[in-house]
Amino acid sequence: MKQRLGAVERLFPMPCVLVVGGTMEEADTLAVAWINVVSSTPPTIAMGLRKSRRTLDLIHSTGGTFTVNVPDTKLAPQVDYCGIVSGNTADKFAATGLTLVPAALVGTPIIDECPYNIECRTTHEVEVGEYIVVFGEIVECHAEERVLREGTTIAEMDALDPLVYCAGVREYRGLGPKLCDAYKIGNAFRPGELDG
Amino acid sequence: MKQRLGAVERLFPMPCVLVVGGTMEEADTLAVAWINVVSSTPPTIAMGLRKSRRTLDLIHSTGGTFTVNVPDTKLAPQVDYCGIVSGNTADKFAATGLTLVPAALVGTPIIDECPYNIECRTTHEVEVGEYIVVFGEIVECHAEERVLREGTTIAEMDALDPLVYCAGVREYRGLGPKLCDAYKIGNAFRPGELDG
Repeated sequence: MKQRLGAVERLFPMPCVLVVGGTMEEADTLAVAWINVVSSTPPTIAMGLRKSRRTLDLIHSTGGTFTVNVPDTKLAPQVDYCGIVSGNTADKFAATGLTLVPAALVGTPIIDECPYNIECRTTHEVEVGEYIVVFGEIVECHAEERVLREGTTIAEMDALDPLVYCAGVREYRGLGPKLCDAYKIGNAFRPGELDG
Repeated sequence: MKQRLGAVERLFPMPCVLVVGGTMEEADTLAVAWINVVSSTPPTIAMGLRKSRRTLDLIHSTGGTFTVNVPDTKLAPQVDYCGIVSGNTADKFAATGLTLVPAALVGTPIIDECPYNIECRTTHEVEVGEYIVVFGEIVECHAEERVLREGTTIAEMDALDPLVYCAGVREYRGLGPKLCDAYKIGNAFRPGELDG
């Protein structure tokens, strides 16, 4: 039996990343769950940021560069703090001990403690009420060598251990064990395979 | 030690939902991982769909309505099939046994077997290369009563058991156990709390 809930802004699950705007000299970071890839031509990320966010001002101050830093589950307290507190009243890097290091192709730094980092340049913005949806072209990515499948750019999930945000219940979780392979398990429903 | 990966279109983790376009008479569905909430004013979802997708044509055919259906982990094979196969050559509902039922506020149906469903009306679209990023206002949601925290619209994660997509490795996973509460654990870094 289903129940109607009204118009609630939830989807399950969500990532929970640290978005950095600014430069090595002046930067801020923000925990963002409303973010995902939206295109591969070119590789593009979109994220919804409240207009009042200092990180958004800093993104604008550099002509649109930002970095997306994927934390592991051990960083949940630091990430949560960066979602609770405003950069206008606190130095989030000093408070958490998170370390900025230079990126490769953009002037905005990445967070060293996050095992996966994405460098972006804003291509366009869309206003949706009190939010700005920022579209960023992915220009470079970085990963800790220990999380990569040897000789590839593929991150192994048990090593990466990305933080997961659950909306509504407001919980942080990690990933469960692997269930099955995508682009494979579904072949069971193809008529040919059912015969074989 | 970090390694540069180039510009790869991955973020961790991603949801994996079934998006339905069309009507009770003619519908198609597609597995979509490139989707998330982007605003709460109004509640809005954005998703990247390849231009050639039949579901996108069906969304356009109804003036922009679509539904987002959150599967649980048991539906991984059905979801994967709906990502592998084209609706131009196969009836995905007949093949998988997934059942369409009428939504409440839009003419596009929801998938009964998915424990959480979201009804959307397109507000705008952004072209990004070969993809269209569709912005949909969330107008109604539905959930199985058994997944809801009693007397609320909040879905409990162990009951909902949402399917998780891991890019790069192309794995399906579920959620791990709860780690901690968001908007709470981060208070440990506030100076006041450290003293207390």
